[in-house]
Amino acid sequence: MLSEFLLSEMSRLGSQDALPLHRQLYEALRRAMLDGKLGAGERLPSSRDLAQDLRLSRNTVVAAINQLSVEGYLGSRVGSGTYVNDSVPRTTPGRAARGGGHPSATPQAGRLSTRGKALASTFCATELEVQPFTPGIADFSAFPLTLWQRLQNKHWRMTYPDMLDYNDSGGYAPLRRAVADYLRVFRSVHLEADQVVITSGTQQSIELCARLLADHGDTVWVEDPAYWGAVKAFMATGLSLHPVAVDEQGINPSTADNAKPPRLIYVTPSHQYPTGAVMSLPRRHQLLATARAHDAWVLEDDYDSEYRFSGPPISSLEGLDTDGRVFYMGTFSKVLYPGLKIGYLVVPKPLVAAFKQAHYDLNRPGQMPVQAALAEFIEMGHFASALRRARQNYGERRQCLLEALKPVLRDDTPEGPSISGAEQGLHLCLRLPQDVDDRALAQRIAQHGLTVRPLSAYCLQRTDLRGLVIGYGYAPLADIGRCGPVLAGTVSQALSG
Amino acid sequence: MLSEFLLSEMSRLGSQDALPLHRQLYEALRRAMLDGKLGAGERLPSSRDLAQDLRLSRNTVVAAINQLSVEGYLGSRVGSGTYVNDSVPRTTPGRAARGGGHPSATPQAGRLSTRGKALASTFCATELEVQPFTPGIADFSAFPLTLWQRLQNKHWRMTYPDMLDYNDSGGYAPLRRAVADYLRVFRSVHLEADQVVITSGTQQSIELCARLLADHGDTVWVEDPAYWGAVKAFMATGLSLHPVAVDEQGINPSTADNAKPPRLIYVTPSHQYPTGAVMSLPRRHQLLATARAHDAWVLEDDYDSEYRFSGPPISSLEGLDTDGRVFYMGTFSKVLYPGLKIGYLVVPKPLVAAFKQAHYDLNRPGQMPVQAALAEFIEMGHFASALRRARQNYGERRQCLLEALKPVLRDDTPEGPSISGAEQGLHLCLRLPQDVDDRALAQRIAQHGLTVRPLSAYCLQRTDLRGLVIGYGYAPLADIGRCGPVLAGTVSQALSG
Repeated sequence: MLSEFLLSEMSRLGSQDALPLHRQLYEALRRAMLDGKLGAGERLPSSRDLAQDLRLSRNTVVAAINQLSVEGYLGSRVGSGTYVNDSVPRTTPGRAARGGGHPSATPQAGRLSTRGKALASTFCATELEVQPFTPGIADFSAFPLTLWQRLQNKHWRMTYPDMLDYNDSGGYAPLRRAVADYLRVFRSVHLEADQVVITSGTQQSIELCARLLADHGDTVWVEDPAYWGAVKAFMATGLSLHPVAVDEQGINPSTADNAKPPRLIYVTPSHQYPTGAVMSLPRRHQLLATARAHDAWVLEDDYDSEYRFSGPPISSLEGLDTDGRVFYMGTFSKVLYPGLKIGYLVVPKPLVAAFKQAHYDLNRPGQMPVQAALAEFIEMGHFASALRRARQNYGERRQCLLEALKPVLRDDTPEGPSISGAEQGLHLCLRLPQDVDDRALAQRIAQHGLTVRPLSAYCLQRTDLRGLVIGYGYAPLADIGRCGPVLAGTVSQALSG
Repeated sequence: MLSEFLLSEMSRLGSQDALPLHRQLYEALRRAMLDGKLGAGERLPSSRDLAQDLRLSRNTVVAAINQLSVEGYLGSRVGSGTYVNDSVPRTTPGRAARGGGHPSATPQAGRLSTRGKALASTFCATELEVQPFTPGIADFSAFPLTLWQRLQNKHWRMTYPDMLDYNDSGGYAPLRRAVADYLRVFRSVHLEADQVVITSGTQQSIELCARLLADHGDTVWVEDPAYWGAVKAFMATGLSLHPVAVDEQGINPSTADNAKPPRLIYVTPSHQYPTGAVMSLPRRHQLLATARAHDAWVLEDDYDSEYRFSGPPISSLEGLDTDGRVFYMGTFSKVLYPGLKIGYLVVPKPLVAAFKQAHYDLNRPGQMPVQAALAEFIEMGHFASALRRARQNYGERRQCLLEALKPVLRDDTPEGPSISGAEQGLHLCLRLPQDVDDRALAQRIAQHGLTVRPLSAYCLQRTDLRGLVIGYGYAPLADIGRCGPVLAGTVSQALSG
């Protein structure tokens, strides 16, 4: 079946484009995957079998397979052959990393509810592949898999039946203690271990807060520009969004419409997503005072605080809070790996019992052996060393990207181009003059196989921001060295053209 | 610190109650755990150290620890000592299994939103321990841990970085295929693997449907009596609940208020929760016709279809559906273990892309290595054999419980007591005459250390149902043999008294 499809495709391609044989096979295999004839996770016939079936030389087959592997379509598993990767870019909507552009309609969603249509809409339909400079994701290929496997094993060996059940106590106790110790020391969060609720990540943390602290139709202030993941979570929980402009000091409550008093205020104070602005100390006090005045809750998403490269350390907003209205949330996905699905939420003491109860009833949390392995990973210092390695690694990438972008920067005009948000995290923001079409520019850059995102795509209401959000978490150093100048060149060309 | 607390508690207890020493120590340790002085997951000092510190004989210490282990307060891990179990009954709200009673206020929830208060309210505050006859849970202690660990290991060894990332394709492809094959053969579900979306369980499956298919305020028809987990999910997603009475043929659409047309209809047709009614074929056709007339979606929760003990096999409702309006959902928690957190949702074809996209955006699914291990677990036939073993095992428990309840049954009156729903699943329902106070009866039974639930506690609107929902999934055969007659005796006493 597969052979027949490949042969017919190859003959079509061969006659049309006069492509060399290995390129024809490459295209035919790629089409088979995109059309779903070769499904994600499916095993490819061996190169020997393929060569025989298609009457090609083995070298031709190997060349095509290698090319597809390099491009991420195929993956191999030791002793078990070649497989279609689960991340294979399909013609259906694909991976959306943290961030993304504006909604566009999804086909055949006609029978969805109104909110269903909004929730199922693709924010960035063009983004089907993870490429160098994609913001919002980290390079988890450096994660110490063998060690992790050993720890998991150990905890599976020690597992007693309780660990296989749902958990109603807010997570595995030693993990909650380890998180509390870490946050107390490194993030100046005031807490006891009992206040930590282990969630399946930031999306779940946000939803839990939105559901328990706000009613349908209540107003949530969000940053403008904003992290789309949070925006979706608030949409899903029926809140009314009031975008509040971000400046170089972070969200500016003075510009908010007080006719829309908030029940919740969602902020990313230590590294605003996506501009990278660090919320200044006066602004922090102003924000807390505003929250107090409105009797609102503050949700502090500290999504990438682990990666601070320069400038003074920034403590948490929670640490400044004196009346218990800040919910602090973080995740392990940026230091370990996203699929781990473990995040944490620090709940003010009087609400701990209610949050644990509702978390249990709504989410039935489980996965205790993994939580146990993670607790030991932290306790034994592996988290600290993984973080150290990652920080060094990302620091070099960051430096390399900053170097590459230097020729583009203009310090002599107030409009830039300039860089913001490079002190921390895994992305930076290249701010551009207002007359630049940043969406068109991002598309031009995409033609070079590079993914950056237009800053304007993160804006909810405002129209004055232009720029590029550029990630360096996923791009290996060599790629940045190679692609950085291409990126800079394309930007320069656009600015001068 | 701990020694001091224990000593002072023991001296207090010794003087008050003249308890023997091992009993004093038992009480002191128990109090230390309930008060949080010994936290969940914390390691107990060795019996040798405790004996030395407290100046007790080692036998006394061991006796106290053994008693606490038997009662589930403590667990031991090979080579690593004795730990406070994570499920230790605390003074804070505890585990609520499938089902539960009516909401009661949670303390200190004053600052929650209105929906937050409802969502955080405890449905069954008395239920702090899992005991024999607790409905809604299964005995996962028989799960083949070593095999599972080996499979997980294998897949961790083979893991490529993609497997560590979030997944946007609805789950690990081979697992989706394995689920599709299983459902096609055993549940007569019409589907292709592409329609399977792997979720973190039924709660997530329900929420995804509620969010994508209905808008805030839309009506969902639910069974009365109902599964409270589903009720909470619909409350959380802002739907308006219309309870529709269940009779011996399942939900009866004729009794529904047509002034409240449904956007969704949620049903458990193969074993109604909690009455155990099997939806008859005419009723199934009637339900589908009703759904068609209202252009509503049907959510079919097939939560325990794996365990069918007698009577003809019941196919899925989805299999009868000719116009693609049934969403079929199931879970692995009843056959494997709850903390696995893997369930599945079968989505009608035209909506597959939208569901995958929204699932990705809202839930960022991950845990791919576990999904890979599960796929192989199924493919290699281990699921089938685990199921076979479990079915045999539960079948014996069921038979033993039925025997024990025989003396209570009255076939000569239409009012019963009679048994419903014993053909399938892990619980049955002992129906009682309308004048019995089933809540009081359940409490009297609890005094014997047995958990059953009053049927009236599952009722949303109706007031005519009395009975006991009795689980046999969690109670070992010996416990049923021992406690069954106690249960039956207490019921008989109440009926004659």
